[in-house]
Amino acid sequence: MTFQSSFDDKSIRIDADLVKSHLSKKQIDSLLPEVEKAAVTLHSGSGAGSDFLGWRNPADIVTDNELGRIKDAALHLQQDTSDLVVIGIGGSYLGTRCCYEALRNPGDPYVLHFAGINISGHYHLDMLSKLDGRDFGINVISKSGTTTEPGIAFRIFRGELENRVDKSTSSKRIIATTDKEKGALRQLVASEGWTSFVVPDDVGGRYSVLTPVGLFPLAYAGVDIDALLAGATETAVACREKSFERNPSRLYAAVRFLLYKSGIPVESLVTFEPRLEQFIEWWKQLTGESEGKDRSGLMPSSAIFSRDLHSIGQWIQDGPRVLFETFLSIESGEPKCTVPDIGESADGLDYLVGRDLFDVNKTAEEATRIAHAEGGCPNLGIIVRKMDAYHLGALIYFFEYAIAVTGYLAGINPFDQPGVEVYKRKMFELLGKPGFAKS
Amino acid sequence: MTFQSSFDDKSIRIDADLVKSHLSKKQIDSLLPEVEKAAVTLHSGSGAGSDFLGWRNPADIVTDNELGRIKDAALHLQQDTSDLVVIGIGGSYLGTRCCYEALRNPGDPYVLHFAGINISGHYHLDMLSKLDGRDFGINVISKSGTTTEPGIAFRIFRGELENRVDKSTSSKRIIATTDKEKGALRQLVASEGWTSFVVPDDVGGRYSVLTPVGLFPLAYAGVDIDALLAGATETAVACREKSFERNPSRLYAAVRFLLYKSGIPVESLVTFEPRLEQFIEWWKQLTGESEGKDRSGLMPSSAIFSRDLHSIGQWIQDGPRVLFETFLSIESGEPKCTVPDIGESADGLDYLVGRDLFDVNKTAEEATRIAHAEGGCPNLGIIVRKMDAYHLGALIYFFEYAIAVTGYLAGINPFDQPGVEVYKRKMFELLGKPGFAKS
Repeated sequence: MTFQSSFDDKSIRIDADLVKSHLSKKQIDSLLPEVEKAAVTLHSGSGAGSDFLGWRNPADIVTDNELGRIKDAALHLQQDTSDLVVIGIGGSYLGTRCCYEALRNPGDPYVLHFAGINISGHYHLDMLSKLDGRDFGINVISKSGTTTEPGIAFRIFRGELENRVDKSTSSKRIIATTDKEKGALRQLVASEGWTSFVVPDDVGGRYSVLTPVGLFPLAYAGVDIDALLAGATETAVACREKSFERNPSRLYAAVRFLLYKSGIPVESLVTFEPRLEQFIEWWKQLTGESEGKDRSGLMPSSAIFSRDLHSIGQWIQDGPRVLFETFLSIESGEPKCTVPDIGESADGLDYLVGRDLFDVNKTAEEATRIAHAEGGCPNLGIIVRKMDAYHLGALIYFFEYAIAVTGYLAGINPFDQPGVEVYKRKMFELLGKPGFAKS
Repeated sequence: MTFQSSFDDKSIRIDADLVKSHLSKKQIDSLLPEVEKAAVTLHSGSGAGSDFLGWRNPADIVTDNELGRIKDAALHLQQDTSDLVVIGIGGSYLGTRCCYEALRNPGDPYVLHFAGINISGHYHLDMLSKLDGRDFGINVISKSGTTTEPGIAFRIFRGELENRVDKSTSSKRIIATTDKEKGALRQLVASEGWTSFVVPDDVGGRYSVLTPVGLFPLAYAGVDIDALLAGATETAVACREKSFERNPSRLYAAVRFLLYKSGIPVESLVTFEPRLEQFIEWWKQLTGESEGKDRSGLMPSSAIFSRDLHSIGQWIQDGPRVLFETFLSIESGEPKCTVPDIGESADGLDYLVGRDLFDVNKTAEEATRIAHAEGGCPNLGIIVRKMDAYHLGALIYFFEYAIAVTGYLAGINPFDQPGVEVYKRKMFELLGKPGFAKS
């Protein structure tokens, strides 16, 4: 049973049979006390980074009153606008984008636009032109209000909005999510009278999707944020379970920790469902920023299959053995789409006629897992029962918890990010920002 | 001068100063004879994979007559349709997509849609709904006509087209790019009377963007394919130069080969220009599929900055030293977009007012390169003079040539991909494809 695990409610399970070539049952089982110790450190708040543990109890992050305000503001803005420009970088957009794309139905128009994540002029001009003739609102998300990329984007899109509509209208269409009392953006909220929400002090950016940072834009996009929070809240309880068999989050932490210790430097989170691409981008920040320190930590990588089997598949199959793969998949509930009979069989695909692409895709996934394992690339599967707001909330918490536990297992502070400032300081110096002298 | 190189026409240059921490001038210079030997192997066609060298002389791949047919067919289809569904996987779409996105002007509508690259039903339903109310054509690209993913997509989109318009209209809107005489798709062309183009026998998928595979859909999208070919043709001549100083393609090959030999397993191609993201995906196939064999070869990775500095930036700055970075950038000619004065300075960005985002972005890039190098992550810059069809053609050839040379340096066949078949065989077996018995 060591290589299989499921939460009691079957929301998420792990199939780790294909790591047996690299890890024994004994190796995994003997890590149980260390994992429990890391979990106790996390639950007791006695470890490094304990100022940033506000995410542990999703139900307590936002009060019912605040949740009501978020929904009301989203509803009001929906009535006045067709699109929302979300301005934020890193943890201020990745969680929102991952949920938004994972939960989109086929054919839904894109109503969220993510700005402030690059500096390129081409990128800004392209996004501005997408908003031609659209009534848009802005949700600017920044703890400080002075981060360069979102700061530039907010100047540009706020300027555009204020050019198009009168001041009282634009003021109603700008929603700020920022520090509760400090910082440039909080000052502007006070002087401009914008609706605002609070970025909690005790939740870091990469753990902030279930705070107003993610909840407001997701509510605007029509996501059931109550269900999202409920899934995370249930999973928080389930993650207290000690046994690997009944706690896939802890088993995932143990397996990836041991694979890294065995000398594999890269983890690739892969999926056969392309709309989970942004989920993987969110995961990259969660893992890379939490673990990449002190010259240690798994390199987070990604692939979308079968697309990338036809690009980097050769390298995965036959290249150097520096990678293990984690396959993220959806168990059921996907829309039906079958292979049609076209009255012609030259393409050799008649054997698939009438079969649901969901099943064909699942089989391609199974085949890939076996082929890669046989090629010496160990892999495990993380399977979420279905893709709805509840289960997505569960999946988010599953990963948040596992990465925190792996961080404590590795003996590092999973909640800081000292290296992120280095390029910024150099950039301010080169740009001539006041206060940053050339060295 | 060893760390700087430029083609004589200044179309592309390399700045490799920041690899000095890892490679000496002597190390690079002493590789010159080996690089020349690899180049001679390539030019003489005496190495492994010599059946796939048709890409070497871009001007000779397609005859003038064929080029005229491509342009005429594109023009005709443009008149009847607003959108083109490009159906192909791996090398049959990556080059087209990379050129299309790199050359898009801000605000241009997306007229190319890439199908057949995934199996997911959600993905197919989403794309079908994007085509609601649009008059679309199909360019199906497959050497064999029996590849699973494009085969499924072609059944679905051809079925949709034939449901919408009469048979004689649909026949005019389907263009096939396939083998000159063999295979299922060639049979269909003969029986259905579709317009068709040829996938050359002597050019592999990942080297095929400058064949009809890429040229037809790019011509449909309005790309100047003559200029694209001209840039590649000029660069093919420039790549015959022996000295590193005057041949950045060979210098790139040498530097990445030496960095890999020095123990760095991953190359990340990164850019501060988000519209080059698909160029990097094309590069991943080119490198990964060419070099990833015999348990050897650099792992191709990617990042878009500054976006990903706020996700994996921490890991790059402070994580294990397993990576070097190649920065791909555009020297000039980008659209102007300045930081506006909003009559308010709380955001601390007044020092940037009136500055072009192009310059701010360049400075951010310079700062990042320095910060990462100081953190022990060596990097080099590949700088293309501007982003137009001519220079893009040059850039494509630059990489194609460099990867072929690196392959011969490493002593492998850069033009095969034996590992790609492994998952397919397993998939056919699990799907019950006739002729593939369960083992």
